Amino acid sequence: MNNLDNQMLIIFGASGDLTVRKLIPALYDLYTGNFLPENFVVLGVSRSNLSDEAFREKVVYSSDFLKERIEKDGKEKVESFANMLFYEDLGDSYDTDFEKLSNRIAGLDTKFKINRNYIFYLSIPPSIYEVVAKNLADQKLNDESNGWKRLIVEKPFGYSLETAKELNVGLQKYFKETQIFRIDHYLGKETVQNILVTRFSNSIFEPLWNRNYIRHIEITNAESVGVEGRGGYYDKSGALRDMFQNHLMQIVSIIAMEPPINDSPEEIRNEKVKALQSLRIMNDEKTLFENTIKGQYLSAVIGGNKVKGYREEEGVAADSTTETFAAIKFFIDNWRWKDVPFYVRTAKRMPTKVTEVVIHFKSPHHQIFNEQGVYDNDNKLIIRIQPDEGILMKFGVKVPGQGFNVESANMDFYYSSLDDGDIMDAYERLLLDAMQGDATLYARADEVEASWKFVDPILNYWATSKTAITHGYSAGVWGPKNADDLIDGIEMWRNPCENLADEPSYCVFKKK
Amino acid sequence: MNNLDNQMLIIFGASGDLTVRKLIPALYDLYTGNFLPENFVVLGVSRSNLSDEAFREKVVYSSDFLKERIEKDGKEKVESFANMLFYEDLGDSYDTDFEKLSNRIAGLDTKFKINRNYIFYLSIPPSIYEVVAKNLADQKLNDESNGWKRLIVEKPFGYSLETAKELNVGLQKYFKETQIFRIDHYLGKETVQNILVTRFSNSIFEPLWNRNYIRHIEITNAESVGVEGRGGYYDKSGALRDMFQNHLMQIVSIIAMEPPINDSPEEIRNEKVKALQSLRIMNDEKTLFENTIKGQYLSAVIGGNKVKGYREEEGVAADSTTETFAAIKFFIDNWRWKDVPFYVRTAKRMPTKVTEVVIHFKSPHHQIFNEQGVYDNDNKLIIRIQPDEGILMKFGVKVPGQGFNVESANMDFYYSSLDDGDIMDAYERLLLDAMQGDATLYARADEVEASWKFVDPILNYWATSKTAITHGYSAGVWGPKNADDLIDGIEMWRNPCENLADEPSYCVFKKK
Repeated sequence: MNNLDNQMLIIFGASGDLTVRKLIPALYDLYTGNFLPENFVVLGVSRSNLSDEAFREKVVYSSDFLKERIEKDGKEKVESFANMLFYEDLGDSYDTDFEKLSNRIAGLDTKFKINRNYIFYLSIPPSIYEVVAKNLADQKLNDESNGWKRLIVEKPFGYSLETAKELNVGLQKYFKETQIFRIDHYLGKETVQNILVTRFSNSIFEPLWNRNYIRHIEITNAESVGVEGRGGYYDKSGALRDMFQNHLMQIVSIIAMEPPINDSPEEIRNEKVKALQSLRIMNDEKTLFENTIKGQYLSAVIGGNKVKGYREEEGVAADSTTETFAAIKFFIDNWRWKDVPFYVRTAKRMPTKVTEVVIHFKSPHHQIFNEQGVYDNDNKLIIRIQPDEGILMKFGVKVPGQGFNVESANMDFYYSSLDDGDIMDAYERLLLDAMQGDATLYARADEVEASWKFVDPILNYWATSKTAITHGYSAGVWGPKNADDLIDGIEMWRNPCENLADEPSYCVFKKK
Repeated sequence: MNNLDNQMLIIFGASGDLTVRKLIPALYDLYTGNFLPENFVVLGVSRSNLSDEAFREKVVYSSDFLKERIEKDGKEKVESFANMLFYEDLGDSYDTDFEKLSNRIAGLDTKFKINRNYIFYLSIPPSIYEVVAKNLADQKLNDESNGWKRLIVEKPFGYSLETAKELNVGLQKYFKETQIFRIDHYLGKETVQNILVTRFSNSIFEPLWNRNYIRHIEITNAESVGVEGRGGYYDKSGALRDMFQNHLMQIVSIIAMEPPINDSPEEIRNEKVKALQSLRIMNDEKTLFENTIKGQYLSAVIGGNKVKGYREEEGVAADSTTETFAAIKFFIDNWRWKDVPFYVRTAKRMPTKVTEVVIHFKSPHHQIFNEQGVYDNDNKLIIRIQPDEGILMKFGVKVPGQGFNVESANMDFYYSSLDDGDIMDAYERLLLDAMQGDATLYARADEVEASWKFVDPILNYWATSKTAITHGYSAGVWGPKNADDLIDGIEMWRNPCENLADEPSYCVFKKK
């Protein structure tokens, strides 16, 4: 037990996939880790007709995701967890009178001495966020005069700048911004949070972290899988909306932000939003043509198995131009980053699953020793978000023997080398933060809007311009042939291997 | 074979220990590595009465140091090497007419087409350097009008500033400074040379390498052994003369130097000497008392075995005050290093054998996160000279879990991870450099004198002042009890373990 306020978590969309796959396992781990408050109740809400028992059966006892843990912990432990879960059927629609729901909440509140502290978790389509917020407000379930009320919303936070603004305005009619927690599970990752610590708890990185020493910054988010049965959803979204606007822009903001004055949620988010607001918006067609690349995977044989091309996936239009590969070059117009290119790409059906940030430092000002392949030997700090979370510094050492010849070597650190026990899953961490009201790792409205402001013109250009070509790439290669052209100079994308310390593969396509 | 000039190596003191232990094995390795010139002859010279054959027997066939290699390479290889070795008996004294020697050299020169390129290696007491140089000059063996002539001299380069100057002047009467190669085998170590490459072939270290980011620099040279039968020599020398004035001051100069304009020998040595000439000389008794500590090891039981105290060693005076431990705090008065303390210590009978440089970076300017033990978490760059040669960076990472707590982690690189085959032994490397006339890794007269200028007042103070106390320390501990008092602030010496990545032990003696 700990000093969290007693509280109730009300999950809208409780019969959905996310609840079974992420939320309940995260809550279960918080429970067995003794992180939950003394009195704690979960109330699942959705349109399915389920009893409390049926809900428990569905999300706990029959859960593939809890199977192992249940086996380990034994029946009693699991039962006592399951008994904290309740269910309320909303009927045909979320757009209904919440009086019955409100009464149910009040009943549970009294029974379990919850003191009217509620988190509403909206695991439902964004199109009905506002109406749910309104219906909650009608029942005064947004009222903090007696107990606090928080609202967690899942991505997508809008489909464009305009829809994001509408969403924010819609929610803010009924809940204050400080009550709204926009979950971005990338921010729940230890390695993402560790970027902040790496930058600001060390004296050796921050002096180098600017345009004087950094040539460019590269961020790669690669998935080896395709759309995996989510073709219908994905075809309306695409890589830019699905990954770039939220997760990758959040990483960019943490890489680029100024040092906050302290580690309070608002100070950190103030600095993050400043970085996002400094993004150089690309508005003209020429700039957008030169700095953005979209691609779509084609069928290929990988490891002897034929994999489908994107347009052959279920739910995808046969003439779809939705991107499964997006690479964007951009700049941040502020004192620190002026003219330092950021290269960010995200894609499906890549050779490996990896997310990493590469800080490419400039060559030494003056070359004293014999160095071949200057760019290759330049210092690089590689921050591996996943898999094998860690940090690797590439630096030059002397080749043994006469003279002063230089070769590249690695200094590395792996998060797994810390003996601090289990690292919390992202959802577990973020739920716990919301339960104690810490919004540091949640996206604020202004961050979301600043990010959309940058992404919107790219999406519009891709959707409407004849010059916006959808390049095909074979499933299992590092994207379209021309992706390396985006990078300035003689360099190419670092195409990382599964193991952080392994030398990257470079694209098979030669530069012109 | 390679493109070295044909040449003859004439070793004075050829029947001595260094020839058998270091020079002949180094030459043998150069031979089997095909580094020697096409025509190459070694002429051993000393006062022992030996034939060529007896000399070959002594330094090759009966050499403990070549045993393994001889076994591996077979009789033929060894014979063809041994046949390059010759011997000349000087008679009773080095102070004699070198006409006979000169004729022998001329005879070998003609026979083996050496083209009058000679290296004279003086492995003899410094007191007779000058007379040997004079006798060589008398025979015009210093004359470079026809073939080059080089003179390699072994340490000690003087016993004090005055004697060092005398030695330099004495040699320079007969040989030009560019002909004189003062060997310091520490400069032959890859890890020492790699400091230059680390600093100047990377863009990430040099911007931090100054008073703005470095709090202090610490250099430890620890030997686990005692004087090992060299008591007679050592008692007249002591740690400061034996290790500090030469090897450690050379390391200091490489750590502290400004970037050279290129990697030519003179440019590198110009910058090194500037650093040594910027050493703040300690002249007054109070400063010397406060910034220098000398110690002497006492008998102790180590691992069940009693080891002798220094004063009980053979050849050591029973009331000796010669230091076997020396720790000096000093400053370099130039733009880069003003007010950054350097802490350098060297000692015998330490817990482990290790040589390393630790760059202690300052704490981050502004503390954003919860950090306990700020000094402990500060960034440190540890350059391990020996054993397990490598580089380790200590830096702060996030403790997994909620909030932003910081702990110290390691990024490390080991030289052994490079797959560049065998690293040359220091003598092998340095001999080869001298053979091709590269003096980069040899100490120049002005460097030696600048170092003595700094060391002299300390030696004088220790020899003459009543306040200069010789502190006893038990063999097997990290020196005298008060050694940590030298370090500013709450820090102590980093007492390293045998393994670079292991956490250091800290002195058992608490600070006051």
